[in-house]
Amino acid sequence: MSENERLSNINPNELLHVISALQFKHEDLLILFELADKIRNIAETKAGLDFLRTILSHKRAVLYFAQPSTRTYLSFNNACQILGMQTSDMRIAGNSSEAKGESLEDTLETIHSYTDLLIIRHIEENLAEKAAWMYNNSDRPIPVINAGSGPNEHPTQALLDAYTLYRAFKGNIKNKTIAVIGDLKRGRTVRSLIRILNNFEYIKFIFISPIVLKIPEDVKSYLLKNNIVFEESDSLDSCIKTADVFYYTRIQDEYDMLNESKAIDYTNLYLNPEYLSKMQKNAIILHPLPRRAEIPPDIDKDKRAWYWKQEINGLWIRTALISYIFKVDGYILKYK
Amino acid sequence: MSENERLSNINPNELLHVISALQFKHEDLLILFELADKIRNIAETKAGLDFLRTILSHKRAVLYFAQPSTRTYLSFNNACQILGMQTSDMRIAGNSSEAKGESLEDTLETIHSYTDLLIIRHIEENLAEKAAWMYNNSDRPIPVINAGSGPNEHPTQALLDAYTLYRAFKGNIKNKTIAVIGDLKRGRTVRSLIRILNNFEYIKFIFISPIVLKIPEDVKSYLLKNNIVFEESDSLDSCIKTADVFYYTRIQDEYDMLNESKAIDYTNLYLNPEYLSKMQKNAIILHPLPRRAEIPPDIDKDKRAWYWKQEINGLWIRTALISYIFKVDGYILKYK
Amino acid sequence: MSENERLSNINPNELLHVISALQFKHEDLLILFELADKIRNIAETKAGLDFLRTILSHKRAVLYFAQPSTRTYLSFNNACQILGMQTSDMRIAGNSSEAKGESLEDTLETIHSYTDLLIIRHIEENLAEKAAWMYNNSDRPIPVINAGSGPNEHPTQALLDAYTLYRAFKGNIKNKTIAVIGDLKRGRTVRSLIRILNNFEYIKFIFISPIVLKIPEDVKSYLLKNNIVFEESDSLDSCIKTADVFYYTRIQDEYDMLNESKAIDYTNLYLNPEYLSKMQKNAIILHPLPRRAEIPPDIDKDKRAWYWKQEINGLWIRTALISYIFKVDGYILKYK
Repeated sequence: MSENERLSNINPNELLHVISALQFKHEDLLILFELADKIRNIAETKAGLDFLRTILSHKRAVLYFAQPSTRTYLSFNNACQILGMQTSDMRIAGNSSEAKGESLEDTLETIHSYTDLLIIRHIEENLAEKAAWMYNNSDRPIPVINAGSGPNEHPTQALLDAYTLYRAFKGNIKNKTIAVIGDLKRGRTVRSLIRILNNFEYIKFIFISPIVLKIPEDVKSYLLKNNIVFEESDSLDSCIKTADVFYYTRIQDEYDMLNESKAIDYTNLYLNPEYLSKMQKNAIILHPLPRRAEIPPDIDKDKRAWYWKQEINGLWIRTALISYIFKVDGYILKYK
Repeated sequence: MSENERLSNINPNELLHVISALQFKHEDLLILFELADKIRNIAETKAGLDFLRTILSHKRAVLYFAQPSTRTYLSFNNACQILGMQTSDMRIAGNSSEAKGESLEDTLETIHSYTDLLIIRHIEENLAEKAAWMYNNSDRPIPVINAGSGPNEHPTQALLDAYTLYRAFKGNIKNKTIAVIGDLKRGRTVRSLIRILNNFEYIKFIFISPIVLKIPEDVKSYLLKNNIVFEESDSLDSCIKTADVFYYTRIQDEYDMLNESKAIDYTNLYLNPEYLSKMQKNAIILHPLPRRAEIPPDIDKDKRAWYWKQEINGLWIRTALISYIFKVDGYILKYK
Repeated sequence: MSENERLSNINPNELLHVISALQFKHEDLLILFELADKIRNIAETKAGLDFLRTILSHKRAVLYFAQPSTRTYLSFNNACQILGMQTSDMRIAGNSSEAKGESLEDTLETIHSYTDLLIIRHIEENLAEKAAWMYNNSDRPIPVINAGSGPNEHPTQALLDAYTLYRAFKGNIKNKTIAVIGDLKRGRTVRSLIRILNNFEYIKFIFISPIVLKIPEDVKSYLLKNNIVFEESDSLDSCIKTADVFYYTRIQDEYDMLNESKAIDYTNLYLNPEYLSKMQKNAIILHPLPRRAEIPPDIDKDKRAWYWKQEINGLWIRTALISYIFKVDGYILKYK
């Protein structure tokens, strides 16, 4: 089947599967942000956590993570657990029937046989979408959440990024200048971020990267088509004093063909005390993590460093998302 | 100890351990089939699933899977979860004390120290049996379920196969012709299937395989001794119009010594539209999965393709089996 | 930061983190032993186990095991499950963000973001301590349990060893002669054992090892400073008739630089029928396991062989420890 055929089979008006950041509408986001705030509030007491554990105690999830992951895996697994779901994991390709020559389609079908939710991270670009398509054509459609698919999309990362802006800016995301720094060519995070922030008004992007790692053409087309203002640069000078958000990313050298990342010098963009001294007092620094040298650990103590809060937000927004998909959000909002 | 000594230590009149398909008697099977049907019925509602999760909430299982597995692992893990059991897994030989030179016996003893049920898949032929023997000789016998042991047995696969026949033929398994196709020499599934179907009357087997992959002599002896009618062939022609069941298996090349499977041409037995057109309208096609090219995915849509239903049946019959072993089946049958 | 700075940050008067056997005071130990006895008693019934599962049903743990482990992993995972905690595991270094160049500190921070308890085994010596230091400096200190850190410490092994002595000697640990046999140079177990037994009076150690595997100087300094009587020997002859405890350990060849362990002949110290015949009737034989040839399996049946009981004790004392850390021990002691 073609990509278009697959996509047309996914109902854009109902959030059953989470495949692309494109799916989230402004109203979905506001519901999810409010829900995440509510859940973390409920989770402050044992009674609250015990309540949450009853919500989806009848559901089971499979976490199929064929690419290495610490934080995405842990946050999804803990999100499921908070809602009382039991999980099974498939974390090493070699540890499964793939080793016996099974097709990926058959593996997806097998997961469907035993579980109520698939959370999938895979190097293959459209596997989450393919799973959603297959499950929609079955007699028991179960939701699929894309937890990172190849170099293409990472919608729940975008969700937690947007949720972090919502919290940092007290609910008011519009009218912000967002500097995005690093490997803009291969970071799936960046593509998803732009798509999700298209829901907010007057967002301006400044893309800062070494020339060989500039944002891809498809991303630029998307920006132009949606009238999103953006600039490109290879230096921080133009925006260091004015941007509201500094979104850092690491070099994605797992997609290297010939170790080409080694030759890229990106040190002039690394966050340092001088840059820090020039930033606005209320600016925030984000990073999807893991980081390397682009943000030295010393900076963690700066009040503008929001990346660890951003990481924690991932737990709560994913918990919110799962409850939203299973339509138990109303039940949670009524608590207490 | 000898194999006989070990076996004599396992009480054939009580189903504590599940080591071999030979253990299942006709009456056990009927109880298990009824129980599986009941459980899947209960599992249709949240209330039902929440009830099931209380049944074995005081038990813990270890899934020791030293051979790769997707579906057997997932179905057992989910079966445990449905009954409220908590599980621990040991899925990579290298990830355990074996790496520190521990004997397999000591590893089995260690599992016994911490858990209430061992579910084991291992390349070593008699390891499940050895565990059962050891546990019987301890002061706290805990059950062992063989989830596939070397090229020898896979009793719960046979159980789900028989359960699938029970559902496909509306409870009436007797008087059927079963074509078994593929690697009959090294497929542990086939041996277990024959043993379990010995509980039903007038079953006729037709074994179809490349000459080098014919059923082993021990299987033939068993068939003769039990007066089970069978034929051998290297072609589907003789039975394509008459068989009730087509049970396909893949080439088990994980047991190759010298890559000998590469030389075997098995394509003439692959299921194709021509064969399909000749089959009876009510025939069913089974496969323990994973499959390779022997059944093309196109065929999945044919109403006679029962292998995905067969896979799902594995979840319910394993849930039934675990509850039966722990003698909580009566409690489940009384629900509602 | 220096080791001293880190240590000074850990409050020795409160058992939040379990980093070193040095932390356990006599009164802590008695509380933990009593608690472990109580828990195993409660765990004898379904009602009891269902009660225990409510205790920490609002807590989640991460088991970060970067060194191979069967028994420590299984016992901790099951201990968490007994108390109703949900767990996530990170068991393969390569399966995490370390593969993407993340620092260990950032990995520890990430775990902190999602969980309520870190249980860590790592080849790096002070990683548990570093985690404790980091978490203490956060706005949400969560406990850390050292489940084995490099060649240095294994405090919960010492705890279960002491608990085993408590049970074997009916609560009366003082005035015992303990022969410790094997790789005393690199076994972290031995260092932790000495430290914990410093809480009891009139303990005498006899250290028996090949000359190249003698106890390290820092251990001797500790013994001298604390006025603990000890002898060193390379033979069992001097103590075989008099010691109360024979604590065996295996060669820790995972710390070999150049396969140097191969050259060590340790067979004269292996436990054999002759040694066994000379031992006191009430002596007990311990081993942290896994074992190799130093204790032949035949000896398991001897009533003095306590190592399998010791292993089981690990489950209950770890369950006790976790409940003690979370201050729910009083609640458990009141049961029934």
